[in-house]
Amino acid sequence: MHNRSLRVGVLGGGQLGRMLGLAGIPLGVRFTFFDPTPDAPAAAVGDHIVADYEDTSALDTFCDSVDVVTYEFENVPVVAAEYVAARRPVWPPPRTLHVAQDRVHEKECFRALSIPTAPFAPVDTLDDLRRAVETLGAPGILKTRRLGYEGKGQARIASLDAVETAWNAIGGVPLVYEGFVSFTRELSVLAVRARDGTTAFYPLVENHHSEGILRLSIAPADGVDATMRACAEAYATRVLESLGYVGVLAIELFDTPNGLVANEMAPRVHNSGHWSIEGAETSQFENHVRAVCGLPLGATRPWGHAAMLNIIGKIPDAHDVLAMSHTHLHLYDKREAPRRKLGHVTVCADDAALVHDRVTALRRVLARDA
Amino acid sequence: MHNRSLRVGVLGGGQLGRMLGLAGIPLGVRFTFFDPTPDAPAAAVGDHIVADYEDTSALDTFCDSVDVVTYEFENVPVVAAEYVAARRPVWPPPRTLHVAQDRVHEKECFRALSIPTAPFAPVDTLDDLRRAVETLGAPGILKTRRLGYEGKGQARIASLDAVETAWNAIGGVPLVYEGFVSFTRELSVLAVRARDGTTAFYPLVENHHSEGILRLSIAPADGVDATMRACAEAYATRVLESLGYVGVLAIELFDTPNGLVANEMAPRVHNSGHWSIEGAETSQFENHVRAVCGLPLGATRPWGHAAMLNIIGKIPDAHDVLAMSHTHLHLYDKREAPRRKLGHVTVCADDAALVHDRVTALRRVLARDA
Repeated sequence: MHNRSLRVGVLGGGQLGRMLGLAGIPLGVRFTFFDPTPDAPAAAVGDHIVADYEDTSALDTFCDSVDVVTYEFENVPVVAAEYVAARRPVWPPPRTLHVAQDRVHEKECFRALSIPTAPFAPVDTLDDLRRAVETLGAPGILKTRRLGYEGKGQARIASLDAVETAWNAIGGVPLVYEGFVSFTRELSVLAVRARDGTTAFYPLVENHHSEGILRLSIAPADGVDATMRACAEAYATRVLESLGYVGVLAIELFDTPNGLVANEMAPRVHNSGHWSIEGAETSQFENHVRAVCGLPLGATRPWGHAAMLNIIGKIPDAHDVLAMSHTHLHLYDKREAPRRKLGHVTVCADDAALVHDRVTALRRVLARDA
Repeated sequence: MHNRSLRVGVLGGGQLGRMLGLAGIPLGVRFTFFDPTPDAPAAAVGDHIVADYEDTSALDTFCDSVDVVTYEFENVPVVAAEYVAARRPVWPPPRTLHVAQDRVHEKECFRALSIPTAPFAPVDTLDDLRRAVETLGAPGILKTRRLGYEGKGQARIASLDAVETAWNAIGGVPLVYEGFVSFTRELSVLAVRARDGTTAFYPLVENHHSEGILRLSIAPADGVDATMRACAEAYATRVLESLGYVGVLAIELFDTPNGLVANEMAPRVHNSGHWSIEGAETSQFENHVRAVCGLPLGATRPWGHAAMLNIIGKIPDAHDVLAMSHTHLHLYDKREAPRRKLGHVTVCADDAALVHDRVTALRRVLARDA
């Protein structure tokens, strides 16, 4: 990196790209974001190429502007990532997208690595669905294999009688039926792998969703013993190594009476790791940039306890949020819209009970402003 | 700040502006930097108006682009700051520049607030100098009143015989002769004042210079008792309140057998506060932005112990620096040049002894790459 900045290209220019830029600029990195949206949040911290992912001429320009490429969302078309990968190093490798973009591929990947998942069956027809529910039992959830997020493209199936309603709601695209997993809470593990194969892990985080959207992450999760942590890290390591992964990987896990069950993975920095900006010595964003640039990883240790609350739909008054002690505000410069993630707030404290109290107070402020 | 970003203008676009931008963007702030240098480091994190400070048409454009204005170096011409202040709120107030740009005004400010300083006398002629040395004694230091930094514009005077040599070296501009202060070390206090008058303080930092350039800051400084800390905070408070100050203020202090003696002040974020990016819950940069935007201040508590080493003249290999545990690299995207500050490295640890060990190891790496 001597006298010339390392140039990192990012496919996608949302808030994750914005936070990658904020974390990478201090390392001397210059960013170029490729995103079809003109007012992409990441444009504040780098150059922005506004073009469709199919626009190979724009992808050529992008490749000419950068030394190495990563992505900040997993629905980048695989062909675009592969086009870029023929010209520049791309981390994580594009085959990761192939796995992460399709719930069946994802679960097959987990299964091949002996990582427990919900029982599942691909569904292309109503007959497939009926057979799947008969075999795996009900209740369960019918999901689109691709492009599902934040609870979209999902239909719960309480019994065999409900298959037609569910099929009519989301049928006609490739689907997957997932058997029910009885879990007490959702956790996530954030792992990062450097180019030399070194790995590091953030402490397990407890996540709370509502209406299919992540609302709250608590870090570290309470009640995680060494066995559970080792198990989560072993699962993440298997995925990282099998995919030749470089960068941050998130795996969402169900905490069940029979141990951890993998729900899904995100081949990128993840909303449940935002607390690490203030809450850990090196943030997930900096570690992702370090990894894709071939630099050594930074310490992932938490400074204490932290929680992250998403700002959804409505931007609160900054004064109200920051008037509370130990709060840290992150706005993404996005327009307000229902269900849209517009920012997040991290709260810090020396112990979990204090974090809990501060989250309760902060929720009141966010609800008042919403 | 609801749906529209607050727009902050910064006079100056160096590394301090760059770090202000990195800290302020998460708060939803958009930055415009005014700096005559085309390749200003801050341009990575905001718009950049390239123009001279005397260019009122460019200053008009600048004012039209921003809601509030601050500066990131203290040698902005006062007339430029006043021109801007007639059009937009400017924090800290421009009269602060008037005080901080002139060593005599600065010392008169300290004296008026009963803050101990070195004995001093303004010097405009060789006769003035002779009288000053006779009155205040030797050794002492002859300094230019204005635009002195990093040891430039200074001449040591060991005895009355040396006055002519010193005069010939730097005479012809307004000077000040400062009597010798016997001190054991240099400390600094970083204070921040919000628009509502609330103040917050970072722990005292111990600073080590070489060839007039800050090399190392250790935070918190060792051996600072409650009395010393209270004294430093009281001095800073007097300056903040007397100037109607808003933002971060740094005061360099000599630790002497007779207590703390003020050396100089910087009306801005300061090199001795860079450790706060990783080492404290809220960095000096974020707190400065919060203050000038009229937001509540963030917690200044340190996470543990930290030290900051400046990267001067030569950029080290990023891999070598980051291969050491608990190091954090900050590069300013500046060209290498002798004595130029190109970046800094912060090291973190749970105790002061470990910080010391890591600084020693890091110095070896920086020296090897230099």
